[in-house]
Amino acid sequence: MIIAVDAAGGDYAPHEIVKGAIKAAEEFKVGIALVGKPAILRLLTGRYRNRLDIQIIEANDVITYDEHPMEAVQAKPNSSTVVGIGLVKKGYADAFVSAGNSGAVLIASFFLLGRIESVERPALCSLISLVPNMPALLLDAGANADCRPQHLLQFAQLGSIYAKRILDIEQPRIGLISNGAEEMKGNKLTVEAHQLLKQSGLNFIGNIEGYDLVKGKADVIVTDGFTGNIIIKTVEGLGESFVTARQRSQVASEAHALQGGALVADTGVGALVKGMDFREYGGACLLGVKGNIVVAHGRSRAKAIRNAIGLALRTAEKDVTRVISDEVHG
Amino acid sequence: MIIAVDAAGGDYAPHEIVKGAIKAAEEFKVGIALVGKPAILRLLTGRYRNRLDIQIIEANDVITYDEHPMEAVQAKPNSSTVVGIGLVKKGYADAFVSAGNSGAVLIASFFLLGRIESVERPALCSLISLVPNMPALLLDAGANADCRPQHLLQFAQLGSIYAKRILDIEQPRIGLISNGAEEMKGNKLTVEAHQLLKQSGLNFIGNIEGYDLVKGKADVIVTDGFTGNIIIKTVEGLGESFVTARQRSQVASEAHALQGGALVADTGVGALVKGMDFREYGGACLLGVKGNIVVAHGRSRAKAIRNAIGLALRTAEKDVTRVISDEVHG
Repeated sequence: MIIAVDAAGGDYAPHEIVKGAIKAAEEFKVGIALVGKPAILRLLTGRYRNRLDIQIIEANDVITYDEHPMEAVQAKPNSSTVVGIGLVKKGYADAFVSAGNSGAVLIASFFLLGRIESVERPALCSLISLVPNMPALLLDAGANADCRPQHLLQFAQLGSIYAKRILDIEQPRIGLISNGAEEMKGNKLTVEAHQLLKQSGLNFIGNIEGYDLVKGKADVIVTDGFTGNIIIKTVEGLGESFVTARQRSQVASEAHALQGGALVADTGVGALVKGMDFREYGGACLLGVKGNIVVAHGRSRAKAIRNAIGLALRTAEKDVTRVISDEVHG
Repeated sequence: MIIAVDAAGGDYAPHEIVKGAIKAAEEFKVGIALVGKPAILRLLTGRYRNRLDIQIIEANDVITYDEHPMEAVQAKPNSSTVVGIGLVKKGYADAFVSAGNSGAVLIASFFLLGRIESVERPALCSLISLVPNMPALLLDAGANADCRPQHLLQFAQLGSIYAKRILDIEQPRIGLISNGAEEMKGNKLTVEAHQLLKQSGLNFIGNIEGYDLVKGKADVIVTDGFTGNIIIKTVEGLGESFVTARQRSQVASEAHALQGGALVADTGVGALVKGMDFREYGGACLLGVKGNIVVAHGRSRAKAIRNAIGLALRTAEKDVTRVISDEVHG
């Protein structure tokens, strides 16, 4: 397997991206194709290229965050995004990971790889982990801001397939995000989607509310891309606040220890904060296009990139794209 | 001032509701009209009625959580909800607080009190506090699942007025929840609402994302009732998880202390968790109806009820309903 990695996109590119890619090559024994400017990538990979399966693919341009995705993808055929997705299209790479402009990654994936025929709207599927040892999938995490009920049904189908393959759950429990548990509760979109899901043959457990996210009620959490994006980012923001607050507590605790006190073991908060940390889960997989694409967080450092590559590898190994085109019916 | 309190609605009614009302009567020197079954309320208020301004208003019926709001309001004229809101309509009470079926409280408020003419859609306005010493308002927190851009503009106007009066902020900063900071980012609703807000003359700071909630960027956070409800409940769920996790840590820490270790001061996490705790902020105010209505959380105990009464009192004192009808133009 070869995973193509966008070495030019992301806040900490190329250094942290390359570090993460080296870790992944080492730990997962996977081939890595780093896409970016050759000179700096040769320098950064140095001696690792002797013993690890790391190659460098030239792409001298980059799409930055402030660029309009559609325009940038068309204007920059030599960007790391377009070149990297091209490697997947040609069958040279088995997946592509990018922490760059995520809108551009989505657009380039739609246009270069194309949709799987039966899938109306590809969706970003995020792995979240708010319950210890009980990861769940949330989709759409941001690819489609406006959705129709039929789209939510397909997200449920995509998520169910992905949960079976990636999380090894035989009958994934599908929950629909809404503002009330009862089936008539919701906005027009979710009330109609609820009925479609009930008749879908999926293991649909009904509506779930915001506070159910921490309760492990569902393995696949279905919502439109607007709401999904806001949920993911709200969780992330709170997670970071907790990290900051804990660091302050830690400093106080250490000062206290220096004065003859003792450090206190952290038995619960740490695990929860870890579950809210995007660096742990690595990225979101774009489901429904003809190729394996993982969108990593823009602020990814080496660890997040390593994990995103791990997710991409697992997605490719499980042949998720083929399974989706076999199993999803429009 | 007299605040009517639904003594029959809520998971811990009537005991915790009465306890909270007694606290409020004591601390805020406010008159309380407890609405519910007289016998039990007489028993629970006992000697407090001698020295505090607490009266009992008979309502022998209650609307439970599983009842359909519209049907229940029509079928139960003697419910604590309908009787309590009736007290506001008659001008006998200055505000009404309920932890009961919130759908029924909204419906009964619309029908009994009516909308303020210029307000198309009354909205639930929640006080949230995710940044220490920087409370913010979020609306709509759940009254309107489906909204049009014009409604979001009105929510911003309502929130701006309420922030001025209740939070004493002269020029409240209005943020629009969206899935991206740029003005063209969002779903159709928010993209159009963004344009209306830009031209509104309000202090509109633009789109804000999920992770901005903890950054104190906006004083008034505007969103549709579906998204708002999900944000509030997601924050609440995570807050409770943290409380549970911290309690586990606390037990470990105390065990450690017993063995000669020392307890560690909590310098940051506590404040954050407190800010995520609905018991602290008390309730959400329904803005845009002709009367002051505060919806408390169904799981409210005495402290939350006390705080909800405090919010209702402040809302009544600041004459928010009159200011809204003077200042909001349809």
